[in-house]
Amino acid sequence: MAGTGTDLNRLRELNSLSIVRALRGNPPSTVTELSARTGLSRPSADVMVKALVADGWATVVEPAANSVVGRPARRYQFRADAGHVLGIDVGGHKILAMLADLDGTVVHSTRVAVTPDADPASRLAAMDTVIANCLAETGFSGDDLWAITVGVTGPVDETGRTTLFTPLPGWTSVNPAEHLAARFDAPIRVENDCKLAAVAERWHGVAQDADDIVYLLAGIRTGAGLIIDGTLRRGYGGAAGEIGALRQVRWLGAPAHLQNCPGLPESVAPDDAAAWVFSAARDGDKAAKAAVRRYVRDLAVGAAALVLTLDPHVVVVGGGYSRSADIILEPLERELQRLCLRVPEIRASTLADEGVALGALRLALDEVDARLFTTSLPAPLAPPAG
Amino acid sequence: MAGTGTDLNRLRELNSLSIVRALRGNPPSTVTELSARTGLSRPSADVMVKALVADGWATVVEPAANSVVGRPARRYQFRADAGHVLGIDVGGHKILAMLADLDGTVVHSTRVAVTPDADPASRLAAMDTVIANCLAETGFSGDDLWAITVGVTGPVDETGRTTLFTPLPGWTSVNPAEHLAARFDAPIRVENDCKLAAVAERWHGVAQDADDIVYLLAGIRTGAGLIIDGTLRRGYGGAAGEIGALRQVRWLGAPAHLQNCPGLPESVAPDDAAAWVFSAARDGDKAAKAAVRRYVRDLAVGAAALVLTLDPHVVVVGGGYSRSADIILEPLERELQRLCLRVPEIRASTLADEGVALGALRLALDEVDARLFTTSLPAPLAPPAG
Repeated sequence: MAGTGTDLNRLRELNSLSIVRALRGNPPSTVTELSARTGLSRPSADVMVKALVADGWATVVEPAANSVVGRPARRYQFRADAGHVLGIDVGGHKILAMLADLDGTVVHSTRVAVTPDADPASRLAAMDTVIANCLAETGFSGDDLWAITVGVTGPVDETGRTTLFTPLPGWTSVNPAEHLAARFDAPIRVENDCKLAAVAERWHGVAQDADDIVYLLAGIRTGAGLIIDGTLRRGYGGAAGEIGALRQVRWLGAPAHLQNCPGLPESVAPDDAAAWVFSAARDGDKAAKAAVRRYVRDLAVGAAALVLTLDPHVVVVGGGYSRSADIILEPLERELQRLCLRVPEIRASTLADEGVALGALRLALDEVDARLFTTSLPAPLAPPAG
Repeated sequence: MAGTGTDLNRLRELNSLSIVRALRGNPPSTVTELSARTGLSRPSADVMVKALVADGWATVVEPAANSVVGRPARRYQFRADAGHVLGIDVGGHKILAMLADLDGTVVHSTRVAVTPDADPASRLAAMDTVIANCLAETGFSGDDLWAITVGVTGPVDETGRTTLFTPLPGWTSVNPAEHLAARFDAPIRVENDCKLAAVAERWHGVAQDADDIVYLLAGIRTGAGLIIDGTLRRGYGGAAGEIGALRQVRWLGAPAHLQNCPGLPESVAPDDAAAWVFSAARDGDKAAKAAVRRYVRDLAVGAAALVLTLDPHVVVVGGGYSRSADIILEPLERELQRLCLRVPEIRASTLADEGVALGALRLALDEVDARLFTTSLPAPLAPPAG
C-alpha cells in the first residue's frame, strides 16, 4: 500500500522544510551533505533544494574554477537576506532598534536617549526615529521588514498594551503595535522587556546550554523573565514573572538600599548612585558594603521564590547592576544556599544593555519561522503576509 | 518525485499511529469514520486498521445480525484491555493503589491505612500488600502490568528518591523504584504527590479545560504542583513547586493556626483538629473563624508567589482542607485580589483523596503511550519491554 496523493503532498512539504532547516545556519552545502543531514534520499534532496532555489529561498554557490580534483560538487546556501526583521527596546532611558537578516545577523542598530519621565508621544516619536534611521542606513523600505517585535516595561496583555502597570508615565494607554501597524504591514508583536532579555540569554547569552532559565533583572527596577523547557513563558494573561509585586519577597524596596546608601555624595545623580555604591564597596567602604549586603539579601528572597517554584537549571543576573556581578553573585549564591532546597547555577549576563533588543529580534525571527514552517513556502520576492 | 522506501515506511508508521489515536477513546468505528478522523484515504485506513487487528491492538465488532438496511459496516475498537497500568499513592496516612486498563478505566483499587510515623519497611510492606491485592482481585500477574507509577511526599530526584527532604520518617534513604523493580519488569516511575495531584486535576478533575494550572495542597502539609502549557513541570532537579520552603511566604506555619485554635477540645485528635475548626467556623465560633482567617491569609502569601510567578489560568485547591472549600475559597480569592496583579480562577478539587493515585495512573499511561507512539507498534501479546 503506497500513500495517497494527499499523503505524499504533505510528505513533500515536510521534506522541503527539513531541507530549509538543513541549509540554515550551515555553510554552503552539497546535496550529499543535505541528504545526510535530513535523512532524505539524495534524489529527493536534490529535487527539493532546486525547488527552493527556484522560489528564491536558496542560492547556488558554484564550485571554484581552479579545483583540481575532478568536478567538485555544486553547493547551496540559504538566502538569509531574503528578508529582514526588526527588534526594538523601548526603555526608560533609551530606545534601541536592531535590524537583522533571517539568520539573525544584525545588519544595523541605532539608539537614542530618552528620559524616564518622557511622555508617551515623545517616546513613540523616538521609536519612529530609530526605525527610520535603521531603514535609511540600510536602504530598506518598510516592505522589507518581515516581522517587528517591541520590548516594553510591564506585563503585556493580548493587545500588546501594558494595562496592568508600567513605570513609563502615561504608557498604560499606549498601543505600540497599533502605532506601528499604521505604517508597516509586517506582523508586530509587543513583549515585556524581562521576558525578551531571558530569550536573548538563551539565544546569544550565557544560558545557551539551558532549557530552564530564570532571568533576573537587577537594576533600578527588579524583574524576572522565565524560560521553561526551552520556551518563553508568558502566563495566561501575560503576567508571568511578576513576583516582584509581592511585598513579602522584598524586591520593591531592594534598590533603595543602594540609592539611599549613607555617604553617597550629593553630586552623584540618582541613575549613577548604584554604580558609585558598588565601586565604593569594591574599595572597602563599610557603609557601601553594608548597602550591597542588604540589597543582595532582599534580591535573594524574590529570587528564592522563583527558584523554589521553578527549580531552574540556571539563574542569569542581568540589568544595569549586573556590571557589578563581581560583588553581587557570590553573596547572592550564599543567600540562595540558605533559602533554597537546590541552588541552580548563577551566571552574570554579558549582553550589557542589548538583551531586550536582541530578544525582540529572536521573537521576530520566530514569527517568520512559524510562518515558514507551518505553511507551504511562499517565494521571498513576495514576503509572507502578516 | 515519489518518496523513497524509507520515507514511505515512516509515513506508514505515522499513519498507523494516527489510526490508534482515532480508535482510542471513541466508540467502535467504521473505516469511513477512521478515514474522516485521520485525514487518511479510505483504502489506507482499511489496511492500517486490519494490521492493528492482526497485531492484537484492535478488535472487530461485527454488525448486529438483525440489521435491515443493507449490509451494515464492520466496526473496529481499540483493545483497552491489551495491557494494564498501576498507580500507587504512598502517603502519610494511607497507601492507595489503582489498577487501570489502557483507556484509563479503573478496574480495581485497594487502600490500607498506615500511621504517619510508620518506618520505611512497614510502609513498603503496605505498598506490596495493596499491589498484591490488586493483582489477586483481578487475576492478573505482574507481567500484565505495562507501567507502574508511585506517588511519594517530597521532591523526587532522578533516581526516584526523596533525598532533599520528606516528612515520612526514614524515607530519604528508600528507593521505591528499586524495591518494585525486584519484582516487576514494567517501567517504574516515582513522582511527588502534589505533582501527581496536579496531573489528576487536568485529567479527571476541575481543571480539564486549563493548560496552566497551579495545584495547591491544603492540608496538614501545604504544597504545590505545576502544570504549564499542558505539561507537568518537575524542574531541573525535580524540586519545582517547593515554594513552601521559603519562610517569607508563610506556608510552614499556616496549618498551625488551625491545629492550635483556641477552644479546640482535648478529645479531638490532631488529624481531626482542622475539620473541627472548619466546622466550628461554619457554626459562627469566633475563635474558629479567626483561626481560618489567619490560615487563609498565610496560605494566600505562598499562593500569590506562585500566581505572580506563573500567571496561571486556574488555581485548584486540593488536599484534606479542600473539603471545607466552602469557607476557604472566598477569603482566599479576596487575599489574592489584594496581593496579585491578575487573579486566576480558583476552584476546589473534587477528587477527594484519590488525586495522587489517579495522577500516578495518568503518568503510567503516558509512559505506555510514549512507547506506543515513538516506536513501531509491538504486538500486545508481548508487551513493550521497559
